[in-house]
Amino acid sequence: MAVHWMLIEIGAPFETVLVDLASGGQQTAAYRRLNPAGRVPTLVVDGSAHGESAALLMLLAERHPEAALMPAPGSADRATWLEIMIQLANTLLPAMRDWFYADTDGEPIGADAVRSLARRRIETAWDHLDRRLSSSQSHLVSDRLSTADFLAIMLMRWARNMPRPATTWPNLSAYIERVTQRPSFIEVNRREGLANWPMSLDLPEQDGR
Amino acid sequence: MAVHWMLIEIGAPFETVLVDLASGGQQTAAYRRLNPAGRVPTLVVDGSAHGESAALLMLLAERHPEAALMPAPGSADRATWLEIMIQLANTLLPAMRDWFYADTDGEPIGADAVRSLARRRIETAWDHLDRRLSSSQSHLVSDRLSTADFLAIMLMRWARNMPRPATTWPNLSAYIERVTQRPSFIEVNRREGLANWPMSLDLPEQDGR
Repeated sequence: MAVHWMLIEIGAPFETVLVDLASGGQQTAAYRRLNPAGRVPTLVVDGSAHGESAALLMLLAERHPEAALMPAPGSADRATWLEIMIQLANTLLPAMRDWFYADTDGEPIGADAVRSLARRRIETAWDHLDRRLSSSQSHLVSDRLSTADFLAIMLMRWARNMPRPATTWPNLSAYIERVTQRPSFIEVNRREGLANWPMSLDLPEQDGR
Repeated sequence: MAVHWMLIEIGAPFETVLVDLASGGQQTAAYRRLNPAGRVPTLVVDGSAHGESAALLMLLAERHPEAALMPAPGSADRATWLEIMIQLANTLLPAMRDWFYADTDGEPIGADAVRSLARRRIETAWDHLDRRLSSSQSHLVSDRLSTADFLAIMLMRWARNMPRPATTWPNLSAYIERVTQRPSFIEVNRREGLANWPMSLDLPEQDGR
């Protein structure tokens, strides 16, 4: 979702190809040639295939400086932007992987322990981001939309059916309301057939998971 | 180690302050003000404190273009560099965290399950990197030293006492031999009082862990 959403936000020309996870589309030989780990998403840029959402958001931001979705190199917020991108990538993303795939990535017998630690880490990360957003700043990196918001909002959406969804943290809730008003977010939900997150978004359809 | 090593490699002026993990130095109020998560390392740049090794390596690379430790924006290898930095940060780093800290990050009763999954993920990552280095390239991103090598070598060193160390993968072993010959690696080992990894490095002292 994050990369698709950002492509819509910046207005870059692109073509989408569905990888149907439900039928194992990420495991086919053809897909594995593009993405050896068998993960989504893959973005083909200048004829080369690349994975990792966080990396792709950073790549798109620097290829489209007109969209201003990252602080410029050398600017005051640059270090903070890099730090937050890496934090989201190495804390929330792997913990979400554990939460959703503990049974298949590891032994089913250990899955509860893995999920329990994952939940603790995810909720600690929401605490941390909620505090960050309490200092009256509107977005994760100062007051401007950046790649960090695309990644964070996708992760918050993934957590919507967890025991304690991100929307139950007050500053995160206000942040989610704010960022998901963007026409590009509404449009990516429409194109992917997703709906009803957050509840205030008035969209026609509802997705499964 | 990775950030310290890179600072030595690029020859930038810096000052080090020991955070003594053995005595909980990362938990003090003074350190938490610089690094709210209580993790090492922290780098203070232009008066602001930032964490996350992978982010700091990227920041240093772009602040020191003369060291050429990343492919320039717009160059052919740029997407690959971003992808590998994120992969190391969101696969190996969190799995290493699980391997070493499963007992204290989570419930001790679940620690074996967490470590077991961590080991599987770490060995899968070594498989992946070993294949990458088999195509006759000398470094992780084409044939040039980059920030990815500083991060990867640190991670490979961390794994030296695991059931299957990275040095048992043939291409990783050759890569480790090659990169650890650099004077900057020998120097960071000397300054941190580390030794004997890989075994061929002839250094005087030996570290504990």
